[in-house]
Amino acid sequence: MQLVILVPIAGILAVLFALWLAYDVLRRDTGTKEMQDVAGLIFEGAMAFLRRQYTTIAAIAVVAAVVIGVVVATVSDGVHRIEFTGETDPGTNTAVVRTGEVVVSANQEAVLTAIAFLVGAACSALAGFIGMYISVRSNLRTAAAAQRSLKEAITVSLRGGAVSGFLVVALSLLGVSAIFGVYSRLLDNPPEIAPFLIIGFGFGASFVALFAQLGGGIYTKAADVGADLVGKVEAGIPEDDPRNAAVIADLVGDNVGDCAGRGADLFESMSAENIGAMILGVAIFSVTGRIEWVMFPLVLRAFGILASMAGLLSVSFFARDDGRQNPMTPLNNGFYVLSALCVVGLAITTRVLLKDAWGWYFLCGLVGILTGFAFVYITQYYTAGSWRPVQEIAQASRTGPATNIIIGTAVGFETTAVTAITIGLALVTSFILGTHADIVGIGGVQLPGFTKGIFGTAVATMGMLMAAAYILAMDTFGPITDNAGGIAEFSGAPEGTRHITDALDTVGNTTKALTKGYAVGSAGLAAFLLFSAYLDKVKEILGIPLTTEIPVNVANVDVFVAGLLGVMLVFLFSSLAIRAVGSAAQSIIEEVRRQFREKPGIMTGTERPDYARAVDITARAALRQMIAPGILAVGLPIVVGVIFRYFRPNDEIPGGTGWMAVGGLMIVGTIGGIMLATFLNNSGGAWDNAKKFIEAGEMTNPDGTVIKKASPEHAAAVVGDTVGDPFKDTAGPALHVLIKLLATVTLVLAPLFIKT
Amino acid sequence: MQLVILVPIAGILAVLFALWLAYDVLRRDTGTKEMQDVAGLIFEGAMAFLRRQYTTIAAIAVVAAVVIGVVVATVSDGVHRIEFTGETDPGTNTAVVRTGEVVVSANQEAVLTAIAFLVGAACSALAGFIGMYISVRSNLRTAAAAQRSLKEAITVSLRGGAVSGFLVVALSLLGVSAIFGVYSRLLDNPPEIAPFLIIGFGFGASFVALFAQLGGGIYTKAADVGADLVGKVEAGIPEDDPRNAAVIADLVGDNVGDCAGRGADLFESMSAENIGAMILGVAIFSVTGRIEWVMFPLVLRAFGILASMAGLLSVSFFARDDGRQNPMTPLNNGFYVLSALCVVGLAITTRVLLKDAWGWYFLCGLVGILTGFAFVYITQYYTAGSWRPVQEIAQASRTGPATNIIIGTAVGFETTAVTAITIGLALVTSFILGTHADIVGIGGVQLPGFTKGIFGTAVATMGMLMAAAYILAMDTFGPITDNAGGIAEFSGAPEGTRHITDALDTVGNTTKALTKGYAVGSAGLAAFLLFSAYLDKVKEILGIPLTTEIPVNVANVDVFVAGLLGVMLVFLFSSLAIRAVGSAAQSIIEEVRRQFREKPGIMTGTERPDYARAVDITARAALRQMIAPGILAVGLPIVVGVIFRYFRPNDEIPGGTGWMAVGGLMIVGTIGGIMLATFLNNSGGAWDNAKKFIEAGEMTNPDGTVIKKASPEHAAAVVGDTVGDPFKDTAGPALHVLIKLLATVTLVLAPLFIKT
Repeated sequence: MQLVILVPIAGILAVLFALWLAYDVLRRDTGTKEMQDVAGLIFEGAMAFLRRQYTTIAAIAVVAAVVIGVVVATVSDGVHRIEFTGETDPGTNTAVVRTGEVVVSANQEAVLTAIAFLVGAACSALAGFIGMYISVRSNLRTAAAAQRSLKEAITVSLRGGAVSGFLVVALSLLGVSAIFGVYSRLLDNPPEIAPFLIIGFGFGASFVALFAQLGGGIYTKAADVGADLVGKVEAGIPEDDPRNAAVIADLVGDNVGDCAGRGADLFESMSAENIGAMILGVAIFSVTGRIEWVMFPLVLRAFGILASMAGLLSVSFFARDDGRQNPMTPLNNGFYVLSALCVVGLAITTRVLLKDAWGWYFLCGLVGILTGFAFVYITQYYTAGSWRPVQEIAQASRTGPATNIIIGTAVGFETTAVTAITIGLALVTSFILGTHADIVGIGGVQLPGFTKGIFGTAVATMGMLMAAAYILAMDTFGPITDNAGGIAEFSGAPEGTRHITDALDTVGNTTKALTKGYAVGSAGLAAFLLFSAYLDKVKEILGIPLTTEIPVNVANVDVFVAGLLGVMLVFLFSSLAIRAVGSAAQSIIEEVRRQFREKPGIMTGTERPDYARAVDITARAALRQMIAPGILAVGLPIVVGVIFRYFRPNDEIPGGTGWMAVGGLMIVGTIGGIMLATFLNNSGGAWDNAKKFIEAGEMTNPDGTVIKKASPEHAAAVVGDTVGDPFKDTAGPALHVLIKLLATVTLVLAPLFIKT
Repeated sequence: MQLVILVPIAGILAVLFALWLAYDVLRRDTGTKEMQDVAGLIFEGAMAFLRRQYTTIAAIAVVAAVVIGVVVATVSDGVHRIEFTGETDPGTNTAVVRTGEVVVSANQEAVLTAIAFLVGAACSALAGFIGMYISVRSNLRTAAAAQRSLKEAITVSLRGGAVSGFLVVALSLLGVSAIFGVYSRLLDNPPEIAPFLIIGFGFGASFVALFAQLGGGIYTKAADVGADLVGKVEAGIPEDDPRNAAVIADLVGDNVGDCAGRGADLFESMSAENIGAMILGVAIFSVTGRIEWVMFPLVLRAFGILASMAGLLSVSFFARDDGRQNPMTPLNNGFYVLSALCVVGLAITTRVLLKDAWGWYFLCGLVGILTGFAFVYITQYYTAGSWRPVQEIAQASRTGPATNIIIGTAVGFETTAVTAITIGLALVTSFILGTHADIVGIGGVQLPGFTKGIFGTAVATMGMLMAAAYILAMDTFGPITDNAGGIAEFSGAPEGTRHITDALDTVGNTTKALTKGYAVGSAGLAAFLLFSAYLDKVKEILGIPLTTEIPVNVANVDVFVAGLLGVMLVFLFSSLAIRAVGSAAQSIIEEVRRQFREKPGIMTGTERPDYARAVDITARAALRQMIAPGILAVGLPIVVGVIFRYFRPNDEIPGGTGWMAVGGLMIVGTIGGIMLATFLNNSGGAWDNAKKFIEAGEMTNPDGTVIKKASPEHAAAVVGDTVGDPFKDTAGPALHVLIKLLATVTLVLAPLFIKT
């Protein structure tokens, strides 16, 4: 158990590391006056958006916390019962089964849950805010560094991105372990019951993530589409032209979605999955009496953080500045270093904490690490120009936009296959490996296979997420390089600088795509873990031993219908998200038109457009649009659960139909959501790169001449790219969050669905 | 039980009725020489396609029958055990439970199943063939009638369509009841066991339907897209121009998808659902000893046929020829007459056969009839130009093809909501109503609620499908009027004739869309019924009483992963289907180009293109392309079941994991499939009508002028229409069939997945 000390150490080290990185980035050269001007505008815009977004989210979150508190106070009896195996009775020579019980008052439970919710929400918001703050400071430094060398520019942008990555991971680890520590040690609850008291933290994280991802996703694409339509199409001025009032909003948007949004997404993944895995650990604790099973997820995460730091530092070592190195090479090498260290950390953690069972669970963790690798490469195959799928879409552009869309859709549908097979293989393999583990309970009691197997899938999920900080650093690298390119363009930097920022931008597009694949893969693994944790919570409320299997019977008509509603939810949610982009884009288009009309000096270059107002109007529109899908996502599972609990009482099911229907909605909806998100992300990414493939001059006419920009083929590819934008940057990523939110909302509100 | 005599009577009456309609249509005026020439070409093309298609399908079906026979002979023990309640034992005064057993040799069972499969396949093929034969004869008569009056043209086309509709329904009823009669009476198997022996019939029907719908769907859109691209786009000649060798193929294609394809789809729905409902009736029989519960589905269908005949005959009564009547009005009135008669038939059947339980099951049937109504109107709302969704897509065309596609996708996603809620409400309501039914078993034994409830959902499904013959008549009306328009255009008929065929065509588009909504709704209801029948089959094999509930536990990792693969299957299948259209279109494009090149007289009008060759090449390409998705659909559930049976033996589940994993794949895949098919059908329909909305001059520029054909807005809407074509005519309808095939393949091969 000495290893547990690593948890705060790694967490604090990661914070210090992030601060050092931030210091290192901020002290660097800030480039020319022109660059500073643009960057200043982006910075102000980003801060204005964040202020408005987090104010809105904070208001919603406080209301939600009160509602959660009231609901929990009303429906929960505050009793937490877990049956666990005690010492062997010398008389009968069998293990004694005792029931551990914690009784808090319903009001106290409500307060604990609401506080955990608010702490989770606050940590998530804080991580998003700081990461984004550094990101919009790093873009300028990257542009400045690009005046000198590619190597320096990569270093700056990667370090800027890493601030966000490490803070997100550290705050998740510190947040979960701090609230666990407070609720178990200070409030004197047994450590095997405390995981059930802190699930509010996961819900708070999901809640903020949903709104951050939705609001950010809508904002970024509304600004992008709006700027293009009103600038390039209507006014006929080039992209990123300073006369377009929407340009700054567009540059701000790049940060909002990929930096703040994805950060909140992975913060949620890690927090919810940590708590879920701890709950699964309680099941093993209840038979073995060894609390190490509960602490295991925290320690493994600590090793993941340390490995990520080493991996990131190794990147500078691999980077060369001879102008011939592909910028992806050092990033990939760093990932290899990190992965090797994760394997070592995994071996140590399993060996020390899980004792004799370590070998099988080590293999489970290895499955997770390999799954992470697989998703990184699968995503590359389907969304990069070097392979068949993207080239096929590009070729289909020869016969116009319709065939481009048709083939892009077919490719997007196709990508669900390898995603499903990979997730399926990872889950079944790690489950089987887990069942083989040799765990001896007190008095020689045997654990049932499914308890060991499910913990195996949890170890795989945790193994996959060990690399999260590094992956997130690469992701935030994307908007920083994108912005650096925008700043170079906007400030009229020389050709050489722009050449370097262009190269960086290409790498950034790849890393952004990778992260989405990684995020959907980890959501798939985490979904099963969280679903199992939900069932443990149901057992705990019903007083059923955690090692007893309770079925969620999809042949029951109520569960079937709830499952149908679950898949319906992911489609309807995506519909609202996609539609929101159009509505919000309309707002910015009207604002830019108004500015052109009222300030004729803008077009002639004598007057400056009011960038801040354009940012603010888009932000307000985007945040307004996120309310409906947000309410749908949180509300539907609750409504379904309550209706089935009260209107379909079923005495044959312990606890009635409510909790089982919610389980059906969650699990079938999650399966549908993973597949739909995979389609939306990958088709969007493939359309984007099919356009870039044509722009790179890789396609020729029958007569051998190269197909260029502004050809009919290129125009067709642009249509595909535009269609894909809200798919891959708004709806798809928001679905990842929705999937996990379904799990956390039901975990927290489980008592509401159970007839006791 | 005297009512059972109605089954052959209604079946034979329907055949005679169809023959009379066919005679009536065929003896009518065949129009001008020019019309006859074109119609002759379409007829020849259609027959050539059918010959090739059914030859291919027959070859595949015979191979499949042999494989099924071998598998059944290997894995089945030929023992069918059903525990049923016998007379009350006077000593103990409780009902005696006896086990009814039929032992056939494994070889005999294999032969029975293979024969049932082939009969089902042959009936389906026959219905498709005859219906299509009359359809391509009726188009000419409709065009000729349009020279005189709208009323006459409607009568001819509707009667032509009704031949197909009534034959499909009659052959399904006669086929199922004949094979049931032969297997129970002649072969002397108890009537409560016979339903398990005839499920091969349903599989045969699904099997043919899958290939007919896939091959037809690929063919029709390949010909359509190919003809447009090579004619309108490349050669710059108008649509339906005789110089385009692909034009006849295009006209043939209209019949192939909507007539033969949808006919096979509904033939399968009715057959599989009839057999499934009979199996569910066996569960009630096992307690009550009343065989009426098993015969009920056949009798109800018989009443549905009679009601449909009356409804169809009433259409002429409502049709007026004053030129002001909307052609939809008499069709709608006929549907009302039919529905009223269905209610009467439902009341008689339930009252006579179900005795005291009739009231509740009457209400269940009513729920089904209302659900049919609901789907007809929901589809209209989402795909007709008079309402918000289509107009929204049309408006989005103002900003180009990309926004048209984005909003169309959002609308398509949105339509899943009302579909899911309607199916969910119908299932839960009819289940609840069913549980209230008062059924007294032998010796006063009570039936468990879920057995009564599931039978309630089956009655709802049967109620919904009572109108199938009429709906199918309206559907086949679509391609006949479409073809009549083509014939009028091609033969240079005068303005007045073309005005009438245009009006008919619009109605035909509406009826085609309605049928798709009806088909997906009935597939949703039928899925739950077939899933329950599958579980009864599993119980029968394991020797568990049919009134015992066995869960399909989606919290089991194997079932979860199988469910994930099920949803993956529907996406991957759709990807292959959509892609197939593009590949097959390429073949026809190359053929037309070749003809233009080698016969320069075609363009000058001195030489006639070789239409037959274009038809044949497209047919071959389409049939080649249907193999991969077909094998995927049939093969994946088998592979998953076999792998889980042999590699994941789980002693805690009776019969092992195999059957449960297959159940998870089927049910979660079905849910995903219903939602995806809804999206594909409705988005496609809405895009189509958004284009028509603009063509009808319903949209104006800001300056008040009407937006016309060939405007940028119209061009954008054409892109959406083209994208939607393979969605709504290839992938979506094929998914309906896939859903039911998943159920029938697992029903027949259940012994393969069960460890005994």
